[in-house]
Amino acid sequence: MAAHDAVEVILAKRDKHELSDSQIDWVIDAYTRGEVADEQMSALAMAILLNGMNRTEIARWTAAMIASGERMDFSTLSRPTADKHSTGGVGDKITLPLAPLVAACGVAVPQLSGRGLGHTGGTLDKLESIPGWRAALSNEEMFAILEDVGAVICAAGDGLAPADKKLYALRDVTGTVEAIPLIASSIMSKKIAEGTGALVLDVKTGSGAFMRDADDARTLARTMVGLGQAAGVRTVALVTAMDRPLGRSAGNAVEVAEAVEVLAGGGPSDVVELTLALAREMLAGAGREDVDPAAALADGRAMDVWRRMIAAQGGDPDAALPRPAETHVVNAPATGTLTRLDAFSLGVAAWRLGAGRARKEDPVSAAAGIVWTAGVGEQVTAGQPLLELHTDDPARIERALEALEGAVGVDTADEPLPLVLDRITA
Amino acid sequence: MAAHDAVEVILAKRDKHELSDSQIDWVIDAYTRGEVADEQMSALAMAILLNGMNRTEIARWTAAMIASGERMDFSTLSRPTADKHSTGGVGDKITLPLAPLVAACGVAVPQLSGRGLGHTGGTLDKLESIPGWRAALSNEEMFAILEDVGAVICAAGDGLAPADKKLYALRDVTGTVEAIPLIASSIMSKKIAEGTGALVLDVKTGSGAFMRDADDARTLARTMVGLGQAAGVRTVALVTAMDRPLGRSAGNAVEVAEAVEVLAGGGPSDVVELTLALAREMLAGAGREDVDPAAALADGRAMDVWRRMIAAQGGDPDAALPRPAETHVVNAPATGTLTRLDAFSLGVAAWRLGAGRARKEDPVSAAAGIVWTAGVGEQVTAGQPLLELHTDDPARIERALEALEGAVGVDTADEPLPLVLDRITA
Repeated sequence: MAAHDAVEVILAKRDKHELSDSQIDWVIDAYTRGEVADEQMSALAMAILLNGMNRTEIARWTAAMIASGERMDFSTLSRPTADKHSTGGVGDKITLPLAPLVAACGVAVPQLSGRGLGHTGGTLDKLESIPGWRAALSNEEMFAILEDVGAVICAAGDGLAPADKKLYALRDVTGTVEAIPLIASSIMSKKIAEGTGALVLDVKTGSGAFMRDADDARTLARTMVGLGQAAGVRTVALVTAMDRPLGRSAGNAVEVAEAVEVLAGGGPSDVVELTLALAREMLAGAGREDVDPAAALADGRAMDVWRRMIAAQGGDPDAALPRPAETHVVNAPATGTLTRLDAFSLGVAAWRLGAGRARKEDPVSAAAGIVWTAGVGEQVTAGQPLLELHTDDPARIERALEALEGAVGVDTADEPLPLVLDRITA
Repeated sequence: MAAHDAVEVILAKRDKHELSDSQIDWVIDAYTRGEVADEQMSALAMAILLNGMNRTEIARWTAAMIASGERMDFSTLSRPTADKHSTGGVGDKITLPLAPLVAACGVAVPQLSGRGLGHTGGTLDKLESIPGWRAALSNEEMFAILEDVGAVICAAGDGLAPADKKLYALRDVTGTVEAIPLIASSIMSKKIAEGTGALVLDVKTGSGAFMRDADDARTLARTMVGLGQAAGVRTVALVTAMDRPLGRSAGNAVEVAEAVEVLAGGGPSDVVELTLALAREMLAGAGREDVDPAAALADGRAMDVWRRMIAAQGGDPDAALPRPAETHVVNAPATGTLTRLDAFSLGVAAWRLGAGRARKEDPVSAAAGIVWTAGVGEQVTAGQPLLELHTDDPARIERALEALEGAVGVDTADEPLPLVLDRITA
């Protein structure tokens, strides 16, 4: 590998030049090895955030992050593979019904997931509210469950894209998170290294999303689809609404309960709709567009896979989920149509109730969260229970209620976004 | 002091907002204390470099850096004080004759100086080629010499603007040196904390300067003059040429020898001209525009102060200066007018011969450097000795000669800059 110098690479991007392949390969490798210091990488990240990277640079940056670690290979499995990634939202429990549903349709789903940070929840945190379930699997255990059950949801190992892991932690404390080139390469380096054959991206937009602006979300989606296709992964993105939360719950155990309702053939219509839309994209990406996932949801095959998937990781699918020590009810403020249920406000409230963490080493409460009785567009009556706050610590309720101020609108002129705003393909 | 958060301050500047007084005070104080980490400050420095700071922000940033340390006070001296700061150039030995000259005219000169880094030399490195001379003085010693001799050139203590010291070292390794707000506040925080009554800034422009572009140099000059005036320091800046080096030598002992020639009434005309121009500004700033410094140079009074100043810091003004182990001569390539003698090339060559340092802990060679026999605008004859390279290590000559490729031009169309391009006042 050609030798470069950290200051040389920083100056190039600072002065709006295109980084060469050799500069990118060197800086990612040297940062992973500790030769490029954190203070140098953070200056480079800020220069990238403000001056951008073009498609060639982003593709090379992603490739260099993949090359920093191991790559997995699912080609020995007896079935094709498909994976889904969501950029994160409030009440986004879609992975829970989606993975077993797609597996029930004959496509293997290796879902390497993360934990929640800030106001958006984490899939592993949600599943850990099921007594006995464990997130950490060896690669051998993961492959065995994938072959046997067809779906696995577990923690990503340390071996995938270690450069990304280090850079992500740095960006979090240096104000350099919101750079589309860095977000796209972070997500796609992990997903490409993971070795899935097909990938569906759920790019959220609205108050509860990372990308509040829909145009930014579309740009991110296009960038990631381009990276996936260039790496030989069949990739499609849906840009979906996160101005209101998904379904009727945000938290940990409450979201698992809602996912089980969906797998049982019920559940909130938006969760069902998005689960089926993403399932169809995953099946199509894996060459199984002929299979109708709605049938597998209706006839209980998806539920069967769910039960086996949970049991394979030590969980008891029949165990009672944790209940909160305290609940607090907020009533509807007026009679009329519910026009606003702000995703960000509900996400922050659920986080403050104990469902999320402020630092990555913090524990989360399995029982904490919020459930609501009506979704946007539905009728409510003044005084009816609208929000139910769950927590193990009553002292947390006051700050959660502060976060909810202004979060609910009845009969105002707010026009909600359609659930799926866009479909982006190569 | 109001509490802020590093990410909040970074995001504000990243998103092109004006930093509040409270944010600036906090971030400088917290960085000095180590609460704001280097990787956070470097991201902020890059955001400042790319998005700028307005006058209000720069003034507050400077004030916060001053407040991070001690302030000196020369008001108890029997004479008014004036100081000079140069942004650094090749062959810039002006401080050496200037400080004793101004002192000889009745104005005290407390010259806290630095060491060289990269291709520009450092005043302390040059003076250390005088046998016995030492740069480190206690505050008490400095005051005593200032009262007794009238001029002192010594190392700045650690107590002045410690935030600047820390930030300067960080900027050096993170590609964030060339930000006018950060350069201006770095220089002016030290000069204002030092407590001088009047200040003259010599802002260099051209290939051998920090600010290669004359408009950038003017902007920097205006910014610093504004900061000085706002802090009650009478401040003037001269924007001066650094497309060619000053005088006839670049190095350590060779520059001391040239300074002594000037103090003896001779020396290169550009060094004499700039020394007198800066001396007149310093005298005017200290209320002594009635005094003619040319007379003090001609009649030996400046030389007397020089000898006493050197002796007061342990130096022997009569001692022989170090001579190099090796010399290497480069002849003039053609007959005609010398139109180009590139400052940056000569600076790099002198540095590679051993006169400068790559890292701040490196030693320098007292004898290393370059002398030249003709200046820009003068006639040369093909084959006459033009450059004499001095070094203690003959292995260094080859790389010095590489740096000099293309540095000399005879009879071409290059138009040299006038020595003083601009005078900037409040």
